[in-house]
Amino acid sequence: MPETHSRRRAALRSLLQEAELDALLVTDLLNIRYLTGFTGSNAALLVHAGGEEHTVFCTDGRYTTQSSVEVPDLERVMARASDVALAARASGDTAHYGRSGFESQHVNVDQYESLKREFGAVELRRTPGLVEGLRLIKDEQEIDALRCACAAADRALADLIEHGGLRPGRTELEVARDLENRMLEHGSTGKSFDSIVAAGANSAIPHHQPTSAVLATGDLVKLDFGATAGGYHSDMTRMVVLGRPAAWQQEIYELVRRSQAAGSRAVLPGAEVADVDKAAREVIVSAGHGEHFAHGLGHGVGLEVHEAPSLAGTGVGTLSAGMAVTVEPGVYLAGRGGVRIEDTLVVRDAHPELLTLSTKELVVV
Amino acid sequence: MPETHSRRRAALRSLLQEAELDALLVTDLLNIRYLTGFTGSNAALLVHAGGEEHTVFCTDGRYTTQSSVEVPDLERVMARASDVALAARASGDTAHYGRSGFESQHVNVDQYESLKREFGAVELRRTPGLVEGLRLIKDEQEIDALRCACAAADRALADLIEHGGLRPGRTELEVARDLENRMLEHGSTGKSFDSIVAAGANSAIPHHQPTSAVLATGDLVKLDFGATAGGYHSDMTRMVVLGRPAAWQQEIYELVRRSQAAGSRAVLPGAEVADVDKAAREVIVSAGHGEHFAHGLGHGVGLEVHEAPSLAGTGVGTLSAGMAVTVEPGVYLAGRGGVRIEDTLVVRDAHPELLTLSTKELVVV
Repeated sequence: MPETHSRRRAALRSLLQEAELDALLVTDLLNIRYLTGFTGSNAALLVHAGGEEHTVFCTDGRYTTQSSVEVPDLERVMARASDVALAARASGDTAHYGRSGFESQHVNVDQYESLKREFGAVELRRTPGLVEGLRLIKDEQEIDALRCACAAADRALADLIEHGGLRPGRTELEVARDLENRMLEHGSTGKSFDSIVAAGANSAIPHHQPTSAVLATGDLVKLDFGATAGGYHSDMTRMVVLGRPAAWQQEIYELVRRSQAAGSRAVLPGAEVADVDKAAREVIVSAGHGEHFAHGLGHGVGLEVHEAPSLAGTGVGTLSAGMAVTVEPGVYLAGRGGVRIEDTLVVRDAHPELLTLSTKELVVV
Repeated sequence: MPETHSRRRAALRSLLQEAELDALLVTDLLNIRYLTGFTGSNAALLVHAGGEEHTVFCTDGRYTTQSSVEVPDLERVMARASDVALAARASGDTAHYGRSGFESQHVNVDQYESLKREFGAVELRRTPGLVEGLRLIKDEQEIDALRCACAAADRALADLIEHGGLRPGRTELEVARDLENRMLEHGSTGKSFDSIVAAGANSAIPHHQPTSAVLATGDLVKLDFGATAGGYHSDMTRMVVLGRPAAWQQEIYELVRRSQAAGSRAVLPGAEVADVDKAAREVIVSAGHGEHFAHGLGHGVGLEVHEAPSLAGTGVGTLSAGMAVTVEPGVYLAGRGGVRIEDTLVVRDAHPELLTLSTKELVVV
């Protein structure tokens, strides 16, 4: 939708004007996708603070057709070294681009040396994180994409359970592949990250990679996975028990569930991110399991599966309506098993909107 | 194998001594994997030119166990900001690290500013590409990994054909998923890149992404795909025709096949990369199809699916024994169909070693 991208560029222009910049050279491909809709693998974008007229997009000849469809609303230049081509353009027109920012969190030192040469008389300023700052607050089109991604993951899990995909004798790797294929069947364009399937004692390893370990009766199985849609990522963790759950399994499950609910309730506009972490963590600490929850509570999701804000005890800043975050406390008992429950949520005024809708009852198969 | 990594670090030390450096701060994760075997997502490595004693590896607490297994032979430091932690270490010991290089092709401008502060009195030098230079020549352990990756892709294709996976009525996307699952069944740890499955007129698009387009009798189907093993990537393109091939299909197939054979024959130690491209391209140009082969002949493969050397007409440099490259000419007739044939090869003394063993006869199903 060209209007969406033009609205985002307008928001960026306000930031450029505040920073007294004439332009920003955008070189991060996700930021370019956010601002233009372009999905190819090589591009640069020079956003002029004054308006669309002097805003120029550059990609190479492989993307002539694709860029004419995806970026119909901007001047397009074709060059293999897109960033250098736009720097040359700026240096030839210091009246419009005299003081330009660049994404110093992405541009590497060698690339910076080339750009500096090419920008010539342009005054170049380090301006990290301008577009990422805009990306923090999702618009409704982005939330729709997140909703689609989360729905594909929800349906894949439902399918997996309904078709007996979780049963003694299967390996973690088989389950992971099965789940990932089902996400594709439900419209996902890919996976958000390599799925975690961790059975039995492996569930106590927070970021276990699936192995040929075989699922057995009595195992807690942790499934942490996500789908993608329109470039946006979902992220969800659910637990399944094969057969009748043991008392200790039920106990830590209920504990993590209460923690997850407390964390989710704290997801409100204006909340300090460290306080959201604390709200969930206190439940686990009170139960004497504080040392078994050794990671942060959650993170932002969007065009990246891990992006700002970080919901950690050491995090700073507050939540705002429109942010999309995960809430994922866990309790891990080394050698026995662990539980994590994770949702993807959108910060809304009264209470967060839940995007991952799979049941949070402990699933028994 | 610790000996392998220690041998690679010794080779790097010779380069550091030549460059009159005391040490190199390695921050690229693939370069760190190459030098240490570490496969986690956060690390830095300070390689001392004098030997292993003052060479330090850093990762964070998530990888305590994993790093003790993967990097048993180096001093290990645990810190979340691995690069900064090692810079601080160097600044505290200028006797050993007084003049240190860094990977300016990877370090971004903001990161460089932090590192510069932390390195303090250390003289910091831009030294791009030192480890990449070593990675150009594969050792036998790397070639084994490439061989495994290529074998998984070969077997997956054989399975796909044998089980009727290529038939009228299936979509490009279904075929791509089927092929990718079969690579996993044959021991691949993942895919080298998103597989290209392009049927009919789509085969004329060099980097077509699979769609819901349906395979039909008479279609040329282009399959460009790869498996991974131990971090190494395979890359292969094969063509299939559904039903009896048309004369024009056979004609361009035979032409590309002759071009591919000519290119492969030119893959020899000492050959200029541009001459390898030329050897394959001349066959196509002589047949009047020069304008229908609009990309370079091939590229290096290893820890990345696209790495140096580039086998293109504009490329510079020569081949050496132990390099791994693709040879992949194509002829693309817009609106009708196209043919590409691609192998992964290792440069050897007398003639290259072919790693992708699937038949290069036009497969008719």
